Amino acid sequence: MIADRLRELGIELPQPSTPAGSYRNVLVDDGMVYASGHGPLDGDHMVTGKVGSDLSLEQARDAARMTGLSLLASLQAELGDLDRIAQVVRVFGMVNVAPGFDQMPAVVNGCSDLLVEVFGDRGVHARSAVGLASLPFGIPVEIELTARLRP
Amino acid sequence: MIADRLRELGIELPQPSTPAGSYRNVLVDDGMVYASGHGPLDGDHMVTGKVGSDLSLEQARDAARMTGLSLLASLQAELGDLDRIAQVVRVFGMVNVAPGFDQMPAVVNGCSDLLVEVFGDRGVHARSAVGLASLPFGIPVEIELTARLRP
Amino acid sequence: MIADRLRELGIELPQPSTPAGSYRNVLVDDGMVYASGHGPLDGDHMVTGKVGSDLSLEQARDAARMTGLSLLASLQAELGDLDRIAQVVRVFGMVNVAPGFDQMPAVVNGCSDLLVEVFGDRGVHARSAVGLASLPFGIPVEIELTARLRP
Repeated sequence: MIADRLRELGIELPQPSTPAGSYRNVLVDDGMVYASGHGPLDGDHMVTGKVGSDLSLEQARDAARMTGLSLLASLQAELGDLDRIAQVVRVFGMVNVAPGFDQMPAVVNGCSDLLVEVFGDRGVHARSAVGLASLPFGIPVEIELTARLRP
Repeated sequence: MIADRLRELGIELPQPSTPAGSYRNVLVDDGMVYASGHGPLDGDHMVTGKVGSDLSLEQARDAARMTGLSLLASLQAELGDLDRIAQVVRVFGMVNVAPGFDQMPAVVNGCSDLLVEVFGDRGVHARSAVGLASLPFGIPVEIELTARLRP
Repeated sequence: MIADRLRELGIELPQPSTPAGSYRNVLVDDGMVYASGHGPLDGDHMVTGKVGSDLSLEQARDAARMTGLSLLASLQAELGDLDRIAQVVRVFGMVNVAPGFDQMPAVVNGCSDLLVEVFGDRGVHARSAVGLASLPFGIPVEIELTARLRP
């Protein structure tokens, strides 16, 4: 049970966030679940800044983990139960970079490691981790996720 | 019928665009339809410029709506009939940003709102809306779309 | 047979690369194969630099082809046999751009053309080709690919 696993890990999920535009945070369709790009948001607290200038690699990795928790909160709210996830298939990690920063994989590991801690093998995914010119509201990390649900 | 809905909305779709390289504008495969990144192109008229310097937020939102119309034109040309779309599942909105611009969600709403106007609930999707360093030919917005077809 | 086709084309695939973080280079799930973002890496040799300043369009196109070969090597290693691929459905091409460069489609053609040479019609895909602020380790091109497997 994922709920038990979260307790073992001492993880309490944040409140699910509200979409920033005309879309859904999570769409369930035909056995797949598509999570929109999420950021490091926990209730009223949002991390902002460019990675490599405003934020260090370590702070950015923490923001990526926080983004993963926000994704899990949205998935939990939509699915009711995270055990419905059969396999995380794709993570697309976008990092808001200052000129010269290119360690996006180490940043996005903050989210990828969380997914494996929580889901085990079912959390292991294909991934890209790349550097963007700008992210909404100046957040340092935005992550999109696709998973398959149990039949 | 989507054709009726387009008439009600006073929407006339542009001519479908031509791919800018070695790919298809729309690929139908196994019940899914994958639309390549499209831009604000209507016949010979293409909007260009960076958002936040050359283009205002309002102009960029209009370009995103125009991009949505270009997507619909390509989908219509490939599918024959937009009623074949059961659900738009994912929109990936990319905005060509000037330094400091971070209101990508408000820009990409121009496309997302159009999809909901045209398809209703079947047009509501998961989405990311992010800022890129450069888009092909200097277009301000590029949008990729994935949808599921009716069985 | 794709192996024969590769021989005809004089293509020898590189050693499969190692993931740069907590993810898999290729994930097979429920009849689909998701390849993580790959770069122009051949054994110990990795191409780096920004396109439009450090690298010309022609050099970048070569790097995109090399990235395609790296993708094929990872797919081959995971699938055992590239004939298992029924259809490449999506290519997402990301180019590490210097200011002012916007010919990403011509760059990513290096990969798209390779896929069509190798797979024929089964290699024709939907695509986006866009300009990023930064890619991991300073690589000039990163490409993500999704394909459907034969039943």
